[in-house]
Amino acid sequence: MKSITLTMPLDMHLHLRDGEMLETVAPLTSYSFSGALVMPNLVPPVTTLDSVIEYKKRIKHAIGRDDFEPYMTLFYQNYTRPFLESVQDEITAIKLYPSGVTTNSEGGVSSFDIESMRETLEAMADLGIVLSVHGETNGFVMDREAEFMSVYEMLASNFPKLKIVMEHITTANAVEMLDRYENLYATITVHHLIITLDDVAGGMLRPHLFCKPIAKRPEDRAALLKIALEAHPKVMFGSDSAPHPKHTKESCGCGAGVFTAPIALQLLCEVFDAHDKLDNLQAFISDNAQQIYGICAEYKEVVLVKQDFVVPEMYGSVVPMRAGETLKWSIERVD
Amino acid sequence: MKSITLTMPLDMHLHLRDGEMLETVAPLTSYSFSGALVMPNLVPPVTTLDSVIEYKKRIKHAIGRDDFEPYMTLFYQNYTRPFLESVQDEITAIKLYPSGVTTNSEGGVSSFDIESMRETLEAMADLGIVLSVHGETNGFVMDREAEFMSVYEMLASNFPKLKIVMEHITTANAVEMLDRYENLYATITVHHLIITLDDVAGGMLRPHLFCKPIAKRPEDRAALLKIALEAHPKVMFGSDSAPHPKHTKESCGCGAGVFTAPIALQLLCEVFDAHDKLDNLQAFISDNAQQIYGICAEYKEVVLVKQDFVVPEMYGSVVPMRAGETLKWSIERVD
Repeated sequence: MKSITLTMPLDMHLHLRDGEMLETVAPLTSYSFSGALVMPNLVPPVTTLDSVIEYKKRIKHAIGRDDFEPYMTLFYQNYTRPFLESVQDEITAIKLYPSGVTTNSEGGVSSFDIESMRETLEAMADLGIVLSVHGETNGFVMDREAEFMSVYEMLASNFPKLKIVMEHITTANAVEMLDRYENLYATITVHHLIITLDDVAGGMLRPHLFCKPIAKRPEDRAALLKIALEAHPKVMFGSDSAPHPKHTKESCGCGAGVFTAPIALQLLCEVFDAHDKLDNLQAFISDNAQQIYGICAEYKEVVLVKQDFVVPEMYGSVVPMRAGETLKWSIERVD
Repeated sequence: MKSITLTMPLDMHLHLRDGEMLETVAPLTSYSFSGALVMPNLVPPVTTLDSVIEYKKRIKHAIGRDDFEPYMTLFYQNYTRPFLESVQDEITAIKLYPSGVTTNSEGGVSSFDIESMRETLEAMADLGIVLSVHGETNGFVMDREAEFMSVYEMLASNFPKLKIVMEHITTANAVEMLDRYENLYATITVHHLIITLDDVAGGMLRPHLFCKPIAKRPEDRAALLKIALEAHPKVMFGSDSAPHPKHTKESCGCGAGVFTAPIALQLLCEVFDAHDKLDNLQAFISDNAQQIYGICAEYKEVVLVKQDFVVPEMYGSVVPMRAGETLKWSIERVD
């Protein structure tokens, strides 16, 4: 039977939430991943040393095992250098949200004034803290990421020593940016390698595929697929797995987020295998991220086999992508 | 108080459904409109003389008044000339659905083979039966209407005596077509004058604004607004009001359709008033349609006043557009 062994898989963009939801979803990721970059958009957002430490404790408690590292992040604000020095050992990145662009981003940046951001961004560059960015404007839904490119250009050119990760990119525009600035990197989700807006709103309306950034056009998906399949060294996997309880997804006015954590590796095998690029999955799922972030992940081996896996209808209160459907790959064991 | 009197309002694209839903929605339209072109996409679709006559009887029964005319349609198939002669007094138009593009369109046209359609379309032209078209391909959701333009061109140029109505147009592409072929006309909904894809999927996901064709880009809406507000003589109002029960709209995988029938006139007053074009509403809501279709509508006067109207949360089992919100215009009386 066809199989692949992935060592130290990393999810470099993950929403673990808090409380009961954290207890439900954290073990699903820690089972098959060595680590994950944990997003700070709680209510209220994670902005202090104490809140980082306490959140990490709650995550570790929810996981209950030692072979998984939650890489912590702060919610971007203009922080002072002394503060960043005090927190640098506890965080891997700072996540910047433009105000109002996604779930719990209301306290984000409302104008990109380079001078007011300079102290923070220069200190981050000096201290090796990565800037992780949700790159969308408040414009028309299909143009938001493309419109944000000028902000990436401004940030990348003004702070050439700062590592900037364009999170969950969805457009050919963002792909083109990658080779234009040395300090720009990107994460790609598994769902954006698979779906377009057609899957969300082309037939029936599909709330469980509704996310931000919204899935774009077929040519955008093709551009993402190309760099993921070749494991472009500046690109890494970030699931952006974002659980919402079923009742809030399937109601009038559902929130944005696709829940993929427990099926991400299986889906990625399916995608890479379909294009005969399984050999490149190790780099996309781990090596590139370790290189970009300069991290040394907890040792873990995940063996996947080409064998049907029926996705559960629910994990706790959450409906995963592909609920009830059969995937072509399954996890055989984790060592 | 600001007011307007609309005479003989017509809704030239309406879904009345059947059974209990028909009983709920038909009186809402017949109250304030003089007539409506009734879509034939029942299950099974309306394709015979008997089914037209029987459906019209059920509509008249549901309405229970004489000052409203349901203009009946057949579901497009390749019909013979003798059949069309036998049915011509009972129908106003034949509605063409490409197969699979919207609710109950499975029996529609799957390939546009002009020669196989020639007998039907030439007979329709001779008999003065209008061809009403849902103009979408099965392509990417944002491109479907634009991709269909070549079919309109083929139909319009091959059958210059046939009146062809591009139904519920949503793009600047369709607007441009209007002046290119003498025999092309269009209906525009009220919701496509108001919303874009942003309203459907830009913030939360809004199932009650999900319809086919899906709302497009801001520049498309601007093009529609321009010709509606000037009451371009080849353009008329068609609500495409399409009721679905609340539980099917607010579930995983909701159907397409916005329900506007009972608020359409109020919303149109709001839109035309906001652009200081109330004087053109009479032509858009009635005169153009009477001219294009060569019909003489039942006499009715609807007086609307600029006075707040709170839209009910539900009409029967159906949630209308703007449910619970306050519109700036209300119907004062119908004479």
